Parts: sequence; C-alpha cells; structure tokens
Amino acid sequence: MSAFQVDEVVAALQGVRREWRDTQQRMQTGGERELPSREVVADVVEALTGALFPMRLGPTDLRQESEDFYVAHTLDNALHHLHAQATLELRHERRRTAAELAELSAEAQQRVREFAAALPGIRQLLDTDVMAAFHGDPAARSVDEVLLCYPGVLAMIHHRMAHRLYKLGLTLLARIVAERAHAQTGIDIHPGAQIGAGFFIDHGTGVVIGETAVIGERVRLYQHVTLGAKRFPIESDGHLMKGLPRHPVLEDDVVIYAGATILGRVTIGKGATVGGNVWVTQDVPPGCSVTQALSRELARDPNAVPAAVSAK
Amino acid sequence: MSAFQVDEVVAALQGVRREWRDTQQRMQTGGERELPSREVVADVVEALTGALFPMRLGPTDLRQESEDFYVAHTLDNALHHLHAQATLELRHERRRTAAELAELSAEAQQRVREFAAALPGIRQLLDTDVMAAFHGDPAARSVDEVLLCYPGVLAMIHHRMAHRLYKLGLTLLARIVAERAHAQTGIDIHPGAQIGAGFFIDHGTGVVIGETAVIGERVRLYQHVTLGAKRFPIESDGHLMKGLPRHPVLEDDVVIYAGATILGRVTIGKGATVGGNVWVTQDVPPGCSVTQALSRELARDPNAVPAAVSAK
Amino acid sequence: MSAFQVDEVVAALQGVRREWRDTQQRMQTGGERELPSREVVADVVEALTGALFPMRLGPTDLRQESEDFYVAHTLDNALHHLHAQATLELRHERRRTAAELAELSAEAQQRVREFAAALPGIRQLLDTDVMAAFHGDPAARSVDEVLLCYPGVLAMIHHRMAHRLYKLGLTLLARIVAERAHAQTGIDIHPGAQIGAGFFIDHGTGVVIGETAVIGERVRLYQHVTLGAKRFPIESDGHLMKGLPRHPVLEDDVVIYAGATILGRVTIGKGATVGGNVWVTQDVPPGCSVTQALSRELARDPNAVPAAVSAK
Amino acid sequence: MSAFQVDEVVAALQGVRREWRDTQQRMQTGGERELPSREVVADVVEALTGALFPMRLGPTDLRQESEDFYVAHTLDNALHHLHAQATLELRHERRRTAAELAELSAEAQQRVREFAAALPGIRQLLDTDVMAAFHGDPAARSVDEVLLCYPGVLAMIHHRMAHRLYKLGLTLLARIVAERAHAQTGIDIHPGAQIGAGFFIDHGTGVVIGETAVIGERVRLYQHVTLGAKRFPIESDGHLMKGLPRHPVLEDDVVIYAGATILGRVTIGKGATVGGNVWVTQDVPPGCSVTQALSRELARDPNAVPAAVSAK
Amino acid sequence: MSAFQVDEVVAALQGVRREWRDTQQRMQTGGERELPSREVVADVVEALTGALFPMRLGPTDLRQESEDFYVAHTLDNALHHLHAQATLELRHERRRTAAELAELSAEAQQRVREFAAALPGIRQLLDTDVMAAFHGDPAARSVDEVLLCYPGVLAMIHHRMAHRLYKLGLTLLARIVAERAHAQTGIDIHPGAQIGAGFFIDHGTGVVIGETAVIGERVRLYQHVTLGAKRFPIESDGHLMKGLPRHPVLEDDVVIYAGATILGRVTIGKGATVGGNVWVTQDVPPGCSVTQALSRELARDPNAVPAAVSAK
Amino acid sequence: MSAFQVDEVVAALQGVRREWRDTQQRMQTGGERELPSREVVADVVEALTGALFPMRLGPTDLRQESEDFYVAHTLDNALHHLHAQATLELRHERRRTAAELAELSAEAQQRVREFAAALPGIRQLLDTDVMAAFHGDPAARSVDEVLLCYPGVLAMIHHRMAHRLYKLGLTLLARIVAERAHAQTGIDIHPGAQIGAGFFIDHGTGVVIGETAVIGERVRLYQHVTLGAKRFPIESDGHLMKGLPRHPVLEDDVVIYAGATILGRVTIGKGATVGGNVWVTQDVPPGCSVTQALSRELARDPNAVPAAVSAK
Repeated sequence: MSAFQVDEVVAALQGVRREWRDTQQRMQTGGERELPSREVVADVVEALTGALFPMRLGPTDLRQESEDFYVAHTLDNALHHLHAQATLELRHERRRTAAELAELSAEAQQRVREFAAALPGIRQLLDTDVMAAFHGDPAARSVDEVLLCYPGVLAMIHHRMAHRLYKLGLTLLARIVAERAHAQTGIDIHPGAQIGAGFFIDHGTGVVIGETAVIGERVRLYQHVTLGAKRFPIESDGHLMKGLPRHPVLEDDVVIYAGATILGRVTIGKGATVGGNVWVTQDVPPGCSVTQALSRELARDPNAVPAAVSAK
Repeated sequence: MSAFQVDEVVAALQGVRREWRDTQQRMQTGGERELPSREVVADVVEALTGALFPMRLGPTDLRQESEDFYVAHTLDNALHHLHAQATLELRHERRRTAAELAELSAEAQQRVREFAAALPGIRQLLDTDVMAAFHGDPAARSVDEVLLCYPGVLAMIHHRMAHRLYKLGLTLLARIVAERAHAQTGIDIHPGAQIGAGFFIDHGTGVVIGETAVIGERVRLYQHVTLGAKRFPIESDGHLMKGLPRHPVLEDDVVIYAGATILGRVTIGKGATVGGNVWVTQDVPPGCSVTQALSRELARDPNAVPAAVSAK
Repeated sequence: MSAFQVDEVVAALQGVRREWRDTQQRMQTGGERELPSREVVADVVEALTGALFPMRLGPTDLRQESEDFYVAHTLDNALHHLHAQATLELRHERRRTAAELAELSAEAQQRVREFAAALPGIRQLLDTDVMAAFHGDPAARSVDEVLLCYPGVLAMIHHRMAHRLYKLGLTLLARIVAERAHAQTGIDIHPGAQIGAGFFIDHGTGVVIGETAVIGERVRLYQHVTLGAKRFPIESDGHLMKGLPRHPVLEDDVVIYAGATILGRVTIGKGATVGGNVWVTQDVPPGCSVTQALSRELARDPNAVPAAVSAK
Repeated sequence: MSAFQVDEVVAALQGVRREWRDTQQRMQTGGERELPSREVVADVVEALTGALFPMRLGPTDLRQESEDFYVAHTLDNALHHLHAQATLELRHERRRTAAELAELSAEAQQRVREFAAALPGIRQLLDTDVMAAFHGDPAARSVDEVLLCYPGVLAMIHHRMAHRLYKLGLTLLARIVAERAHAQTGIDIHPGAQIGAGFFIDHGTGVVIGETAVIGERVRLYQHVTLGAKRFPIESDGHLMKGLPRHPVLEDDVVIYAGATILGRVTIGKGATVGGNVWVTQDVPPGCSVTQALSRELARDPNAVPAAVSAK
Repeated sequence: MSAFQVDEVVAALQGVRREWRDTQQRMQTGGERELPSREVVADVVEALTGALFPMRLGPTDLRQESEDFYVAHTLDNALHHLHAQATLELRHERRRTAAELAELSAEAQQRVREFAAALPGIRQLLDTDVMAAFHGDPAARSVDEVLLCYPGVLAMIHHRMAHRLYKLGLTLLARIVAERAHAQTGIDIHPGAQIGAGFFIDHGTGVVIGETAVIGERVRLYQHVTLGAKRFPIESDGHLMKGLPRHPVLEDDVVIYAGATILGRVTIGKGATVGGNVWVTQDVPPGCSVTQALSRELARDPNAVPAAVSAK
Repeated sequence: MSAFQVDEVVAALQGVRREWRDTQQRMQTGGERELPSREVVADVVEALTGALFPMRLGPTDLRQESEDFYVAHTLDNALHHLHAQATLELRHERRRTAAELAELSAEAQQRVREFAAALPGIRQLLDTDVMAAFHGDPAARSVDEVLLCYPGVLAMIHHRMAHRLYKLGLTLLARIVAERAHAQTGIDIHPGAQIGAGFFIDHGTGVVIGETAVIGERVRLYQHVTLGAKRFPIESDGHLMKGLPRHPVLEDDVVIYAGATILGRVTIGKGATVGGNVWVTQDVPPGCSVTQALSRELARDPNAVPAAVSAK
C-alpha cells in the first residue's frame, strides 16, 4: 500500500491524458515520442558553439593543433543529432506515419546539410557582433572577454543559428534554440527576426524582438527594449492574420536606449537614436533623436510615502 | 603550509559563523542539516513535470504503452523525496527536536498525500493554460510547441504546484519551487497568488505577481507587467502588517500589455484592457481600456545626444 | 562520405578562424587555451558559496561537527582552481610567453591569497544583506528562507566575491562571476560597483547597476531599477573616456522602487526615496521623495484597442 | 600540424579496417552499428537484478510499499532495451537488410516476452541457490549476507538469465551476460550449461563449466573446478563437430572440491564426491568418493630451492 | 498494453517475494532497506584508500600542502557513511525495531571510532607490504609502481581494513570489503585471517585464504595458493561446528609457490618453503622445502591428442 | 568536535606519511602529483580501443561514414593524455625537477609518436588474434562475437598496446595497462612478453605469462596456464639478477591445455602439445605431446570424506 495513493493518482492522470488526447484528435504514431527533445537540442547547440569557437568556447584542454579533429568530430556528431531532431519535427508537423519516415528523414537531411553549409557564414557574422560589442562598450577590455561574458553575444550565437533553422522551415527547433537563449540571458529574440552584421545588445535583460523585425547593420540596443507589434490584424473569419510584417524596421547605425518601446511596422531611419523609456509608434527620420519629456514631482516632505512597486 | 593560509581563513570563517549563530539564537538540532535542499526540490519538480506530461516532457525514449509504469514509479519516488523535504520544513518552522520527528513526518505525509491527490486537477488546469497560449499567440503553430517552448507555460507548471504547496502550509518549499521558475524564465509569481484557468503570459521576462493577487479565467499578460502592492501598512508596533489583501484583483478575460504596473488592492473589471507601460492605482471598470498619454520630444539635430540608459 | 559535407564545413571554418586570428594579430601562446573557463569559475563560485554557508548552502549531508573539515578542503581546492584561472587571466592580459609563466603564477597566487583573506569579511557583509532582506520583506518568514530563496541574496553572494576580484585586478574573472549571477537572477551588477552593508534587492529581474555606482548602507532596490550612465564623455581622439565616475551615488537608507531609472553622477541623499518608474537625472536631497506625475487616458469604449506591446 | 601525425595514423587505420572488411565480405547494413552493446546489456542485467531482488539489490532508498512501482518501471524499461539488443543480434545473425527489420523486431519481441515470463521462475531458482549457499558454508551468517556478498550467487544470477536467453536462441546476448559474470567473479559458466536448483559455488575463481554440462539439484563446487570437454571430435571435412554432448553430467547432491578437473561426457553419480585437485575422465558411481594419491618429497636441506612458479 | 506483459510478470514476482518472505519469517522493519549497500561500502573503501595514500592514490590534482585538508574531509565523510552502514548491519543482525535505533547507532559509532583510530597502524602495515613486494619481485622498479599496479597490494589494502572491521564485529561489512577485493584481483582472503607485516602475494589470481589462517611476518605467496580447511567437523546435532581453528598456520618467512594447496590446521615452520602445485596436509618443519615428485609421459607420436581441459 | 577524532587520526596519518617519506628519501618535486594516474590511463586505453575498432567497440551511435572523424578526434585526445602520463613517468623515473620538464615532455612526445605510428600494426595483429579465436573455439559463432565477448581478446588488446609501451621504455604505463586487463579477465601477461600473431587464450582465468616469455605464431593456451620462471639467479651481491631470459619459449603452433605449468627458459617445439595440469621444466621436442600420468584412488565407502579444499 502506497503512502500516497499513487495508484489512484496514476489512474486519474491517465484519465486526464486520455481526455486531452481525445480533444486533440492526435494521430497515433505508434506510441513513440512525437516531439523533438529540448535536452538534445541544447546539447546540439552547445556542441555547435564549441565547433564555431573551438579554442575559446570549446573544451578547456583543446590545443590549436587539434582544432580540426575536434571540430570535425563535434560537428559530425551534432549534425546527426540535429538531423534526428529535424526528422521528428517534420513528422510532428505533417503527422506522417512511420512508413513515410524515410522520406521525411531525407528531407530533414537536406535541410541540415544546408544548415551545416551556413555555419562558416554564421561564424563570420558573429565575429562582427563581437567586434561591435568590443567597440560599443567602454568597459570591454578585450574581444575575448566579450565572447566569454556578454549575454548579448550569447543570445546572438543562438539567434544566428535559430534564424537559419527558421528559414529552413525548422521553426520548432528554431524556437527551442531561441528559448534556450531567452532562459539564459533574458533576451527574447524571435527566430524570424532579420538582424544585420555588427549587432550589439548591452545588458539585455527584458529585450524582446518580434518575428518580422528587420534590423540593419551596426545597430545597438540596451536592456528592456521592445521591438513589438502594435496590434494584431484580424481576418474576416475572426482569426488572427499571420505572417504580415508587423514589427519595426531599424536601419543601419540605429541606437535604442534602455526601456524604449517601438511598436508596429515603423521605420527608424539610418543613424537615428531613440532615448531611454521612449514609446514610439511612428517613423523616426534618419539621423534624428527622440527623447522623453520628463514629468516629475518632488516632495520634500519625508513622510510622503511613494507608491511602492512591489509584489509583497 | 598552504599557499593561501587556508587554516587562518577557516578559523575566521568559523568565528563569523559562531557570531551569526549567537545572534540568531538558533535551537540546536543535533548539528544536522536544518533546511530543505534546493537541489532535491528541483529534482522533485523535474520528476513531477515528467509525470504530468510523460510523452512530451518525460524521458525521450518513453513509449505510450509504458506511460503508467513510468508515471507510477516517478511519482512514487518524487513524492517520497517531497515528503522528506516537507518534514524538514516542518521541523525548521517549529524548531522541534528529533524526538518529535515522527509526529512531524506523519503530518508532512498527510500534506504530501493531499498534494498528490491534487495533481490530476493541476494537469487539467495546465491543459487550459496551454490552450490559452496556443489561441492567444499568432506565432504558435501547435499545442506541443507551446508546451515545449513557452516560458509562460513553464512558469505556470511551477506555479500551479507551488500554489498547492503554499495552500498546504509548505510555504518554504513553495517558494523554492517559485524561485526555480523565476530563475529560468524571469517570471516571478508568488506562490500565494490565485490564478484561474486559461492563463497566458507571453514573453514574460520581468513579470511580477504578488502574494495576494487574484486572477480570474482567461487572463493574458505580457512581459514586464507588475501586479504589486502600493504600500505596506504598518502595525502599531512598527512592524509591517502581514496577510492583508494588498495586490490587484483581475477579473475574467482581462488583458494587460507589456510594462504595465498595477498597484494595490484595485480591481480590473471583467474584459478590461490595460495598455502598455500604463501605471494603474485605481479600479478599472469592466470592459474598459486604459492607455498612456504619450509625450515625446523629437530633436532633428543629430548632435543632440539623448540620455543613455546604460550601466557603463 | 559524410552526409553533411563535414570536411568542407571544417575547412571553411578553419578559414574563418584564420582570418579572425590575422585580424586580431594574436600573439602565439603555443596553441594552448588562452582564456579562463566559465565552467571552472562557476565551480569555484559554487564551492566558495558552500564554504561561506556550509550548513545551509553546502552539501545536504553535512553535519555541524564536520564543518571545518569541509570548509578547509573545499576552500583549499577552490582557491587552487581560482589560482589557475587567475594565472590564465594575467597571461591573457599581458600576452606573456610560457617562459614568464612562473612569474605570473606567483603574482596570481598573491592576489588569490588576498582574496581568501577577504572571505570572512565577505561572509559578514552577506549576513547583513540577509538580515536586510528579512526585515525589508513582509513575506519573509525566516532568515534561512531568505538565504535559500531570494535571488537578490544570490546576486549579492556573487557580487561581493566579484567586487573583491575586481579590486584585485582580476577583472575578467570578476566579470564571469557577475554574468553567472546575471544569468541566474536577471540582476546585472557590474563588479566595480561599491555596495555597503545591508543591501537588499527585491524580485530583481532587470536591475542594472553600473561600474562606478556607489551605494551606502541599508539601501533597498526593487526590480527593474537602473543605476546607469547618462552619456559617455568622448576624448579628443574620439575614443570613449574610461574610468570616470559616471553612475549614481546612493547614500545610506535610500529606497528605489521598481522601474526607476537614475542616470549620471547624481547623488540620492541619505534616506531619500525614488518612486516607481521615475526617471532621475539630477540630485535628490536627503530625506526627499520623488514620484511620477501620472497621465492616463481612460477609454470607456470597449472597442478601443490599446497599443499592444508584443513581439508577435 | 598534429604532434602525433594523427592524420597518417587515421589513414593507416582506415586501410586496415578496409582490409578486414574485404576479408570478412561483410554485408553492408547502411553503415550503422551492427552489434549489440556490452554497455547496454550490462545495464539491462543490472536493472533486472534490481527487479528480481528489489529490497536487497535494488536502489538503497527503495521502500517495500513502492516495490511494485519500481519493479514495473524497471522491468518495462529493461525489457525494451533488451528487445532492441535482441533485434540487433537477430539482424547480425541473419545479415538482414533494414527493410526486413520490422519482422526481426517482432521476432525479437516474442522472445523477450518469453524471457520476461520466465523471470519469476528464475527468481525462485535463485532463492534455492541462496539457501544452498547459506546451508553449505559454515561462515555464512544470514541469507542476506549470501545474496549480497557471494560471488557464486552473483554468477548464478547472471547464468540463470543467460541460460534463458541461450534457450531462446539469443546466444550472443547470453554470452555477453555470461562474460560479465566471468569478469566480476572469475567464474566462467557457458550459458548453455543446464544447472538444477540449489546450486552453490564457493570462492569460485577459476571455475569453468562447459556448454553441454548437465548439473542436477543441490550440487556444490569449489574454486578452480573444471567441467570440460576431453577432446573435440573432428568431422570428415576437418571442421570441429558442434553440438555434441561433450561435458560431464553431475547428478543430484554431488560435491566437487577445489581444483578438480572432470573431462568429457562422464557421469558423476548421485551423491558422489570428487576430492581436491583430482583429475577425472571416467564415470564415478553414485555415492563414491574419489581422492588423489599424494606424492611428495620433503627436502630437509634448507638450501634446496624448489621450483618457483612465477612469471618473474 | 505492455508488449511484454509487464503487469503479469510484476504480479508473479510479487508472489515469489511473498513466498520468500513467509519462509524467512522476516521481522517487519517498516519496509525500509534492511541491509548495508555494496555501493556505499565501495565508496567508503575508495575514500579511505585515498586518505591512507593521498598523494599516490588520492585525486590526481592533490598537492602536498593540501594533504591534510583532503585527508580530514575525506576521512570525516567516509567515516560517517561507514557509521550509517555499521548501524544498518547491527540492526540487521539483531532485528531491532526503529525505536532502538539510537542505541544501535551509538554502538556503531563507538566501533567506527575504534576503526578510525586503527587507520594509522593500518597504513604502517601496508607500507611494510609495499616494501615486501618491492624487494620480493625482481621486476619491481619502484615502491610507487608497486603501490599503483600490484593486485596483491590492492588486496591487502582491502584486507587490512576488512580485518579490522571483522575484529570489531562488523562481519558483514568486512565481507563486503573482502569481496570487492576478490572481484578486482581474484584474491579471496577471508576477513578473519590474521596476517603479519611484510606480506606479499604475487600475481594472485585464484589465491584463497581461510578464516582462521594465521600468517607470520615476511611471508610470500604466489598465484592460486589455497590455505584451506581439510574437513568441517560436525556437531552432534548435525550442524557444522563453527569458529574452530581449521586453517593453516604459516610462521615467519615462509614462501608458498604457485598452485600449492595447504589444508587443515597444520603449521608451516619458520622459513620453510612449499613448492609449486604441492598438496600439504601435514606440518612442515622450519627451514624445510617440500616439492612435488613429477610424473610425466612423453608421447612422441604427434597424433596422440592429449586430454583437453576446455569447456567447449 | 568530531565524533571520530578525525583530527587525531589526521595527525597520526601525517606522522606515518612523514616517516615513509623520510625512509624513501624522496626528492621534493614541489609537492605535486608524482605518479601517472590509473584512471587516466584506463580512459586512454578505453579510447584507443574505440579508435582501433570504431564500429564494434566504439560508441554505439557511431555510423560508418563518421568513423574517421571519430577516430581522429579520439586518437588525438587519447594521445595527448598519454603524453602527459608518459611525461609523469619519465619525471618520476628520473626524479627531475620541474625546470627540466620541457625536455622530458619532448622525449615523452617522441615516444608517444612512435606508439601512435604502431597502432595500425597492432590492429592488424589483433585481427589475427580474433581469427585465431574464431577458428579455435567450436562455440564461436562469428568474429564479432569473439571481439565482443572473449576475455582472451580483451587481454590481447591490452597486451599489444602494453608491450609497445614497454618497448618504448614506458614500463610503468605498460604495467598499469597490463594490470587493467588482469583485473578484468584474470589473465596476467607481463608487458615484456613477446607474442606472435594469431594468439588465443580460452577462458583465461589464472593464466600467468612472464616477462621474458617468447611465443610464436598461432599458439593456443587454456585457463590457468603458467609460463613462469624456475628460479631467480642471485648476483654476487645477493641481489636478484635482472633481465636474464628466464621464461619459456613457445614455438609456432604450440597448444597448452588448462592448468599446465611450464617453468624456466625451456623451449616447447613447433607444433608440440602440453596436456592439462602437466608440469614441465625441460624442453619438449617439436611435434610431441606431453600428458600427465594419472594416479587416483577410488573409495567406494560413501562415508570416507575427502579432503575439502575450502577456506571455511
């Protein structure tokens, strides 16, 4: 006899699962795992990060002469695991039976091959991001420190891989990669966002960048910047319309200071600057600066208790 | 001879610990661990998550036919570890001696049994949360993606368990569970908060929900929303008054956009909407919308450098 | 034949690495690891945390009578690993050859020795932080709960160690420690910031504290507070000027509520309070309160859709 | 440039592998793993051992009330892994293509199902072995000590499972299981050997029991006993003849003391005893004892150095 | 539905366990683990080995200056785990209820304290064993090689600890330790055997030393030597008589070559030598050598196939 | 206060270590680890085994197309670890100071490079061993089964690597490798033994092969065969003479059955056979068979109890 009525709880949970499955009218796939695994994808990302920056983010005992052995083995292994996850995603997306699995696997393989071919380009873009952080932050002492410590760089390593997966139609894997970065850095970049070279996010906690955002080269953001949608257009059938461009366009050399919120398909022109906490829902011309008009009350009476923003 | 004078440091640290213990007038409990373990509680939560969603968040090689074996074993194991942690919490709370441990253990067992019995209901509520996310986010492609990737869902898996522990008087364990979600998602929900079915937090970083908040059904929040207390009433003896309702009430179908701050025991009426970055300290009637009056200065002079919000 | 053209990708990655190294004109260091390891530093911090609070954050099966054995062994081990990492930092900073390694190692040893000697003082400061959280939060039930659960305390355990490393010139290690706290708590404190005893950050997500900030005793912050720089002075040669005091000074007993932004080398006087979401760029006299003038529009028309701050 | 000419060694090893594969005229199986894994089989055996004796050889924190949950989950998991290994064996044996894999898998499943059904009987037999050891060894203090410590019992847990696999035609898996016992205990029992209830091997190192040996009930062996074949009959085509009974038959209640060697298809009659170091190649009638005639020379001259049996 | 009828197998196994428990009339101990754990004891032995020889068998990165920290922490930890295991043994032996556990724990603590106090003496004895191996083997190049590589030394590290446990009445723990050595080295020394300083076993596989054997100083054995009992005296009630001296006595400076078998309470006198494969059941006077009279047949006929000793 | 007087035990152990070090007059090497690590060497052997037989003894998920990536990375990594261990051995052997370490490291590197170059040849020899086992054992069903299951093959994988290390003067590493095989298989082959192609040991427990043994091609041994030294010649100074050929020579195609003992520098001629349990101290001419003259007493009296060879 279990002290916790485990038998009953198990039966009740089984009932709830059955209900859920009935509601979802799930196709039977032989009772096997239907979804990619967050853990496996996380390992793949970790391995690819090491393969991209072997001497700095790879294993601590790696020597330069062995880089290529390490890169080849790690890459090969990671890509095969990615292939398996990609096949799972395709099967899940199309609800195919096991019989058609070979076909899906071949398709997944083709996509992973394209992903692999894109990795050198990704590394080149990341090098520009590292340089951007190094030049943009007076506190940065070396490019290595930037690569090792900056959450914005960590987020971009994830995003540049996630974006490539997204463009190859592996949107679920892309999302898992993006959420891993979100969990580690507090920076939430949708894998669909297009981001040019030399991108730098400082501090980063609370940054949100939407799916159809387009960001030029050498752009700089600070913490808690939102590049969001203003509203969701609704189709005639009452469903949300999908795929429409609904997030901002930031042209080259734009700087957005902390806490700024930019909403809708507006364009922030080349070289423009948006000040801290500013709320923008219209275009900003190139070269302009937008700042907030401050309003503040100063109470000299020390007994005046201000509104506490606390959850207590 | 140690290179780092470890002996001296050890002695000094011993002295500091002694001071601390003298100040705290800690009851002697035989020198054993007095506190629950974050690591054990994290493992329990991980296991319970797998038991709640075996085929999607459980082990990757699970097959549907084996679900119940897995659920039974995992649940049984997790509940026993939870029982041990609950006993530690009760002992810590009441400063009992080992002699009374059996009594505390029996009490802890009863509470864990009630917790176990609540798990099927928790799973049902979480299913409504998943559906809410799926319907509320135009980017969501499947309910499985939502379960796998959305930090808001991860936070609610934790919260719905933590809230049950809180109601059973295991507030320290509840808090440890809540802080685990906070660390992973940046969403900080106090375990005391009451939250109805179909709750959805999008993006989530920076959300804070206070202990006495009451949230109805089908409510939606975005990132960086605060449901906080306005001020802390002080008792005649100068201590903060505890337990008073001091956080907002959100009725059914409320939507709160990103960055909004709602303070104090105000009520946001059924179906009302609070716009982004709005600061609310009064009731909002049902069906109403509150938005921020924008004030902004546009400087066309490109040399005008705006206030940088940076920590550099 | 590899399914993913691994050979080609490896060659291309090699090319990109060569380009990068050429650009960086990196000194050859014999092909060995040139940088400290985040993983090792994380383990060191974990071990030191256990050594500082053995019975509460150390191993779960520790008994009080064995504390000193555990502390001595753990400390000794952690300090030696720290020594190795410190040597790597010095070598990296100075681009020395292996021949001079012994000298760098001796210098690193001296610094780690000073760090070790500072640990008892760090523990004492942390005890004041724990007490501050306990007294400052009406929801805190015991000092142990505070130590176990509060992200603000976790951030301060990291910061007080990171700050000591920073003052010893080990700025890269300091930064790695600080970023570990940032990733876990969403609280981003630059290791250079000077923070007095009894410091308490509640909730914490989104807090940013800059390098030259100076914080007195018994100060309290809430989530999403920024203590930032207003602008970066530029030197005659066009480079950002470094090392100038550019962040706020908070005197004793200051309270800053959630979302407030304080920029530049301003002084918030003893006992002053800054309300939620307030933007401050000037001094606040001692004992004063600053609150935000609210402007809000209430639309009773339920069809008026407010600006959504979302990334969808 | 690798310090160890790894490229060249890799190429040379590739050449040797190619030679080997050419010689072996291996069927191509798509380049995947062709063989069962020793590591996986070892884990399966470990898990089944826990499932057979949950409270004594299972996890240390198991409680009796949870036995069935543990047994069900562990068994289910172990059997599925065994199924995968059995499928690999069948494919390897028959050199089938992947296309026929489903068929092989079904066949493997049927065999594993029979294996599973045999487990309760195996446990019953093992209980008799434990009792035999307890009663046969004056030093044994409890049946639990016997189960925990006696290498002979460990060998029989392996053998009784291996024998069942052998009878189900999974001879390669059977052999892997047997060799695991051999490595741990120095007891080498071929999985084909038929062994009755209440079997006890004391000490055990160096025991060898051949494939066609037949052992009755309540038999006892000591270390370094060999039950071997006398010679291998050769077929007309010059190959060794297979499958002929060529090892001894030991009837019920036989005792064989240490170092005895019994060769060929001889029968040791019911209740007979074979003394230490005796060499037997003929039948021994029931109830008889066979002992060795000793021949020994005693040299009183202390300078006479005897033949050293050493590898030095 | 499980593919392997797991439910049925679980039920059947439950039945077998119930039968066994009924037969054994096991006292109920609340359903918890009743026995010491081999895994825990193995870890304790591993830790104690490191504490005895820190720089050579301890962790590879230990430095001499830190030895005492390592030894203290490791010892403390290992002894506490040993204490827990000793308590389990006492409870198992006496079938006590949990209520009397505190008493048993105190008794176990006293014994472990005595064990701890004996460790320095054990280390000294082991040093003599290492020197004996170094001087006795022409192939030994250094004392460190001996400590690192010789299975005879590994066996003695275990035995000298096991013997102490045996003398303290912890015979089950002693046996577990002894069987661990047996599994690793093929050397089976009963923990009761008394063995003097400077003992050396070369090669070792197949050595068996009985419970009441007494071995003097500077004795040397080779592989496959048995120091056994001749027969087991039977008491009037038909049970085997226990505890009688029934194994050989080897006086100082005896050498026994490979494969020799010495049975019963005979005495091999000081400095005597027993040759390879000799069978001894009588006393051997001091200084004498015993060798085997060889008998051998040489068949020049190459067709004469000798008796194969094989299990095929 | 420790329950086990750990402080006193630590101090006493320190005293014993000091004594030992004084006796050994150990050179000071800065207090660092002076010896190779068994664990590291074991990992190296494991990795090299995988590199030699990637698809059969490498990781279970390896695919043929990735073999070379796996082999290159694994080899590279293993060889570098071996290099570090070889450097430790050279330093230990020569008691050099750290200052001369670079020189020793270069020498070690050269030896490891030669070892690496020998690996393809080792693989070829091992292929002949596998074929010999397959043809020599009627029970072997496939070459893969042989590679996977036969302890004799496992021993030879170790020996052929250990022998190469021995010839390169890395005798301590060679010994560690050999003892690893000994522990796993009960087969004790001194790394110095020269063994030709196509060597097969069946069962193997208790086999001992001495340092100067020379074994031709296609030789077969069974369990418990000793190829030992007859006596150790003593030099005029009373020390054992080293390096003299003192173990048997087995010419091509020799078969030695189980339990045979061959002592001294005798030659067993080409194609000769030595029967089970035979004791040989003289040359055996080519093509001859040697068998044992049996002597046995058969007691029909069932009450006559034979000499028990037991340790009870």
